[in-house]
Amino acid sequence: MKALIAVLPGDGIGPEVVEQGTRLLKAVAERFSHSFELVEAPMGGAAIDLTGSPLPPETLALCQRADAVLLGAVGGPKWDPPAKVRPEQGLLALRKELGLFANLRPVTPVPSLYDTSTLKPEVLRGVDLLVVRELTGGIYFGEKRREEDRAFDACVYTVDEVVRVVRAAAVLARARRKRLTSVDKANVLETSRLWRSVTERIVSEEFPDIELKHMLVDACAMHLIKRPADFDVIVTENMFGDILTDEAAMLSGSIGMLPSASLGANRRGLYEPIHGSAPDIAGRGVANPYGTLLSVAMLLRHSLGLEQEARAVEAAVASSLDAGVLTADLSAPSTRPAGTREVGGSVIDRLGE
Amino acid sequence: MKALIAVLPGDGIGPEVVEQGTRLLKAVAERFSHSFELVEAPMGGAAIDLTGSPLPPETLALCQRADAVLLGAVGGPKWDPPAKVRPEQGLLALRKELGLFANLRPVTPVPSLYDTSTLKPEVLRGVDLLVVRELTGGIYFGEKRREEDRAFDACVYTVDEVVRVVRAAAVLARARRKRLTSVDKANVLETSRLWRSVTERIVSEEFPDIELKHMLVDACAMHLIKRPADFDVIVTENMFGDILTDEAAMLSGSIGMLPSASLGANRRGLYEPIHGSAPDIAGRGVANPYGTLLSVAMLLRHSLGLEQEARAVEAAVASSLDAGVLTADLSAPSTRPAGTREVGGSVIDRLGE
Ligand SMILES: [Mg+2]
Ligand SMILES: [Mg+2]
Repeated sequence: MKALIAVLPGDGIGPEVVEQGTRLLKAVAERFSHSFELVEAPMGGAAIDLTGSPLPPETLALCQRADAVLLGAVGGPKWDPPAKVRPEQGLLALRKELGLFANLRPVTPVPSLYDTSTLKPEVLRGVDLLVVRELTGGIYFGEKRREEDRAFDACVYTVDEVVRVVRAAAVLARARRKRLTSVDKANVLETSRLWRSVTERIVSEEFPDIELKHMLVDACAMHLIKRPADFDVIVTENMFGDILTDEAAMLSGSIGMLPSASLGANRRGLYEPIHGSAPDIAGRGVANPYGTLLSVAMLLRHSLGLEQEARAVEAAVASSLDAGVLTADLSAPSTRPAGTREVGGSVIDRLGE
Repeated sequence: MKALIAVLPGDGIGPEVVEQGTRLLKAVAERFSHSFELVEAPMGGAAIDLTGSPLPPETLALCQRADAVLLGAVGGPKWDPPAKVRPEQGLLALRKELGLFANLRPVTPVPSLYDTSTLKPEVLRGVDLLVVRELTGGIYFGEKRREEDRAFDACVYTVDEVVRVVRAAAVLARARRKRLTSVDKANVLETSRLWRSVTERIVSEEFPDIELKHMLVDACAMHLIKRPADFDVIVTENMFGDILTDEAAMLSGSIGMLPSASLGANRRGLYEPIHGSAPDIAGRGVANPYGTLLSVAMLLRHSLGLEQEARAVEAAVASSLDAGVLTADLSAPSTRPAGTREVGGSVIDRLGE
């Protein structure tokens, strides 16, 4: 197939990890006979320095034309407050312009990295979960007010906002183990009661083959640590998703391992590792690119529909990890850590083994 | 000293665990020459069955007169919806009438129970944290609306609401390791920005000896699993506290171990184990009373000012656990579990060892 992929290296370690992502995309294209056009564009702090804007019109136009967007990371102390134009604004604007309302965060700890997690290996065994977080609604985007002696935030959800993200999550569950856990606080919040009733209706009407469970957010925060292998797909509102995805990230030993995708109504998506721009280690060639390489696998699966290729990438990553090709954040202090490029090469070498 | 303690056994396993709590209070009174008057009253489902109300006026009047309230648990399938009068309403009303705005949940895993946690022993070593949750404000108590196609919840905090709970938490930190972590989402929420600025001011003006750190709620959800021993006292708003206390509870292997206190402007407090009424095991004499016994320690410390007695109870609990006196939720399947009364007796025997 032919595909146009926008590549936004961004800031800090972004360019280093994205370089391995583009190498991998080229290798996948070659091995599976696809034609991927990769076009780079500035984004975040790098774009502010070049153009004054964290999301220049040319970058946005490219992303809107592309089949998928691969992003490294944005931000850094150079553009921290009191700076008014900030790298993160570019990311928010990009999500909004592309209509991305579902954030996907899979967590699948691999046995060779169980040591790096603070959870016991027997708890991690069999964990393969995917959190789908609503990304554009809820209290983060509601009206805010500040008065002399009080502050106010509004949490609003419409039926349509819930419908589309639950539908997206149910489609994903259907391609996995067909189990969906919807997380809310329906015993207290009106938005959660709406969430629960809409979820109930959509799943029973459109996804009778999916097993749906409801769970309160505090119970879910427990369950994620107690029996994480119980989960398949979790779907939840914006703020609960913000908290639970970060908690779930700890099942994997390093956030350097974790990919993410943001999806909208069509197939176009934004793919990025969840680690930030890590300015403290930028430019030293030591950053962990596995999160980016696994984001490439998600890109292949969700935006290009190339399931076989996605699995080949995931298998190559697993094989590379098993072989002990580990960056500094993953390896024991006594062993020689692998560099960023070395990991990229190792995964590419193992592609389609 | 003389003290009046209201004892509300409640429902399910409540009466069984509270019985051990009253035995312990009597033993403490005897050993340390205090005069505790213990008066029982109906509460929750038991009170609904007796009087039609989950918090009868006589029970409330007793609690208002008492120096402290010891509660077991309330609720059970018998009073679940569609029942309109519910046991939990009694608890909410009691908290409100007593003006309890700070919920305290300490988590101090003991080495002899590290096996029962899903976290690795080296992560649990040194964990001794206390979460102080604001209990009467925020989105759980804000205005709620439902329209045809949308739902709405308001989150409001006033300066006064933040001041009083932060002050309570800082006082507690002062008696511990003098470190306070305030958790919010100030990068997004207006209520959190108010929370942060009030906390900053109160601590710098009134508690210059306390080391204050701010942490975002999602980062805290990570940190609690990654390096829980870093925390001393955590203070946070109602909903974040709801989620984080349940997450933190998992550091300890069983929620049967965990005590709680709810405090207000004066010394009167409500003390209860965090486990629920567990109707499935009620009446069989197998429930874990350690959470109640540790709640008694909190009662002695926070409402009666009996620090030495509180420590004696905690030491007796630790000694009993070390000796392997474990209820079924704590013990290996191969060993004979201790019964509820056996644990009570074991702790009393070790009091002041
Ligand atoms: Mg987050
Ligand atoms: Mg809770």
